[in-house]
Amino acid sequence: MGALDEGHFNGELENEVKVGSEEELETAEIGDAVKVLLQGLGEDFNREGLRKTPLRVAKALREGTKDLDDPGKPVGFSLLSVGYRQKAKDIVQGALFPEAGLDSGVGHAGGAGGLVVVRDLDLFSYCESCLLPFQIQCHVGYVPSGQRVVGLSKLSRVADVFAKRLQDPQRLADEVCMALQNGIKPAGVAVVLHCWHICFPEVEENSLELGSHPSKMGMQGWVKVSVCSGSGVFEDENGDVWGDFQALLKFRGVNVEKNHIHPSASHCWCPSKSLDAPICNGNASMRNLSNGRISSKTGPAYPNMITAVTSILHSLGEDPLRKELVGTPNRFVLWLTKFKRSNLEMKLNGFDSGRMVMLKPNLNRDEIHSELNIPFWSQCEHHLLPFHGVAHIGYFHAKGAELIGRSILQSIVHFHGCKLQVQERLTRQIAETFSSIFGGDVMVVVEANHICMISRGIEKVGSSTATIAALGQFSTDPAAKATFLQTISNSTASGG
Amino acid sequence: MGALDEGHFNGELENEVKVGSEEELETAEIGDAVKVLLQGLGEDFNREGLRKTPLRVAKALREGTKDLDDPGKPVGFSLLSVGYRQKAKDIVQGALFPEAGLDSGVGHAGGAGGLVVVRDLDLFSYCESCLLPFQIQCHVGYVPSGQRVVGLSKLSRVADVFAKRLQDPQRLADEVCMALQNGIKPAGVAVVLHCWHICFPEVEENSLELGSHPSKMGMQGWVKVSVCSGSGVFEDENGDVWGDFQALLKFRGVNVEKNHIHPSASHCWCPSKSLDAPICNGNASMRNLSNGRISSKTGPAYPNMITAVTSILHSLGEDPLRKELVGTPNRFVLWLTKFKRSNLEMKLNGFDSGRMVMLKPNLNRDEIHSELNIPFWSQCEHHLLPFHGVAHIGYFHAKGAELIGRSILQSIVHFHGCKLQVQERLTRQIAETFSSIFGGDVMVVVEANHICMISRGIEKVGSSTATIAALGQFSTDPAAKATFLQTISNSTASGG
Repeated sequence: MGALDEGHFNGELENEVKVGSEEELETAEIGDAVKVLLQGLGEDFNREGLRKTPLRVAKALREGTKDLDDPGKPVGFSLLSVGYRQKAKDIVQGALFPEAGLDSGVGHAGGAGGLVVVRDLDLFSYCESCLLPFQIQCHVGYVPSGQRVVGLSKLSRVADVFAKRLQDPQRLADEVCMALQNGIKPAGVAVVLHCWHICFPEVEENSLELGSHPSKMGMQGWVKVSVCSGSGVFEDENGDVWGDFQALLKFRGVNVEKNHIHPSASHCWCPSKSLDAPICNGNASMRNLSNGRISSKTGPAYPNMITAVTSILHSLGEDPLRKELVGTPNRFVLWLTKFKRSNLEMKLNGFDSGRMVMLKPNLNRDEIHSELNIPFWSQCEHHLLPFHGVAHIGYFHAKGAELIGRSILQSIVHFHGCKLQVQERLTRQIAETFSSIFGGDVMVVVEANHICMISRGIEKVGSSTATIAALGQFSTDPAAKATFLQTISNSTASGG
Repeated sequence: MGALDEGHFNGELENEVKVGSEEELETAEIGDAVKVLLQGLGEDFNREGLRKTPLRVAKALREGTKDLDDPGKPVGFSLLSVGYRQKAKDIVQGALFPEAGLDSGVGHAGGAGGLVVVRDLDLFSYCESCLLPFQIQCHVGYVPSGQRVVGLSKLSRVADVFAKRLQDPQRLADEVCMALQNGIKPAGVAVVLHCWHICFPEVEENSLELGSHPSKMGMQGWVKVSVCSGSGVFEDENGDVWGDFQALLKFRGVNVEKNHIHPSASHCWCPSKSLDAPICNGNASMRNLSNGRISSKTGPAYPNMITAVTSILHSLGEDPLRKELVGTPNRFVLWLTKFKRSNLEMKLNGFDSGRMVMLKPNLNRDEIHSELNIPFWSQCEHHLLPFHGVAHIGYFHAKGAELIGRSILQSIVHFHGCKLQVQERLTRQIAETFSSIFGGDVMVVVEANHICMISRGIEKVGSSTATIAALGQFSTDPAAKATFLQTISNSTASGG
């Protein structure tokens, strides 16, 4: 090996080490910021369940905001750089295939004019307004021209590339559309996205009182928005080809309303935006934010948390001063603090004394009562990502006696949901709290969807988790347990 | 840097280079084998659509039969080695979390006895009997003990590890169960798998005759098998805890029949096995296979193809002489040759002469007739993976006149499906063939699911692709096109 070769070789090695260090440095920076967030939530980041959470969150955020096609490649590029766009183009151009149009006759088919549609691509992205993940059902269509078609999977890969960054639905649709138009050079491209954003649990101080207005807790439901983008022959939203595209989607039960095409705006879809009117007008500076409503209300912990989230944005290659991101740290902290530990525990301390005792109903073994489908939101402590679902609670009660109010059970579920949790513990804590107030015989089933199961490369979109806690007679009498489980089954079967 | 350090460093580099070359070598070996297969199918592997197919197939097979968790790691291990098992254990043990059981009282909850179930994990694997991919819906449950739980996503990751190899449903269930039992050391583990295997199109020489017995083409339907595996408290299939597990699955509409638990055998589930009775008894040697029924029937091309598939198995780290794999090359070649190009083209050459002309009905523009949901199987030429679905054909015909027989249309679809294809071309060719026989006004919509979209790291399980070809009046008259599309919509809405 000559001196030149050797020098070149060492240079490459050096680069590799350097890139490695940079990545590690960025991951460590995000990890440190996550520790600040955990502290702000009143958590001890050294307790065993949380020990690796900063690293996990850092890795998940880095992976969730980059193209997963090349997991071995360094990711120290700006997410919106030309280089990044170029990459999407490369994906497409590596898979352009010559494909004849019609041999003869009038018409559209094959590589010249035959509409091609890929439907029901499951994606997820991160909301640029609040840093929470959102789910996407994506439909892509294009009309080939120039006697060439693109490999079908590339439509999915390009959509994935643009989803893996901080996004807004309309911009995502536009970027996927533009990238495919530039990459394939077809007669036109159309993109339809249906996006679901989790709701913020509307936990007002007052509604945390036991039994008060459970309907106002707002833990069910998702904010949904549908957006479209079209280029070339799809630029005219009244054109025939849009009609063809809509018809092909309709075969799969997907309806695209006319008003979804070029909608007025999707920029206020994020539910967190309704909470920060002064931020929404875009005039607020970073300084205003960290001294704003939230921090003045709740003390000095929040500015640290907001600064920490700002540094995370920076580590992800984003500009925290970009107009759309200015309020994001504030909103993400607002979300996180809904799961603040101390606050809720304080409230739980007075739980089984006071008026609760008076509410204790006449519980005996006459029959099993089932309180089903009590909704909850929680935050996975391993990944700082939401999980949500329903709890079913079964208990014995005397025939004709008054039942335990659903609002009380909802409060117990809500109390244990609104902190950093794991589902197994949530299930146990609901059962134990019930048992300590109302007596020992109770069974709890929690069913949940975990965002950490659909993001982070796991991508098991349809999966759901169920956990059981059985106390007292429910743990010793198989028939009692079976009866309760059957009741849930029946309710599920009837669409409950 | 001391001499010792330097030597160590160089040694590492050397290893790296060696591993890289080995991978490249294995990929090249598989690629060469794929070229033999393409030749055997009468294809020119230098034509543009196929040029990269050998590399694509090699990469897909290598990725599809290894753990995707560590894409950067070398994969030159035997798939069934202890080292591989160890890896699944590592995945689990890196995510075991301390989790309290009940504070007091009788019962099961949290880290001591509360059943945990993850439902509806979508996986895919490769059938060891025929090398074709099969789809899996996987449900995993375990009963924590020792005050610890495992991160939920690890249940999915471990299932993925064991799916990413040549598998049999029952062994897959057993291996996932055993790995989790050994890794988590819980009170017990249960695994339920529902597996779907694509059917072999039963293309007998006779049924290729136009119009003969389209119902015998057998291109619809999947072979489904359900298997279970249980360890610890799940070893007793009549135990209460199996009942709890089954109940939690039932909430999601998943029914586990009693006879699925420890079924007699799943080893003959692969539809290709019914075609090779002499192989099924396990007495056939490799020599017998390559000189067996198939090759004697169809000439000397097949031994080369069978040898090529055998070498692919070897390159994937499998032992082609392992009992379960002995007939696999034969069966995979049998599948591939169902998509042999020349055979079908020969038949198509006589298509529009002869009796076809007599069948030409009285076509005019009175009304549009729609022949919907004509099933087909095809083979993606980019990935040598199946795609399947339905074609809808619309044409004009005179009121009261005799329609074109569905069996004729089925034959046209079948002819163009049974070769190495892309969906865009299939759609165009169906339209062109119709047009050349019956006249110029025809519209074809093809809807398909592509195995290459659910495997290979894309994993868009629910996605489907639709393509359109519109000839003659259908390309110039938007109303005619819309009418036909609406007919398909209506049929879909009514469950057609």
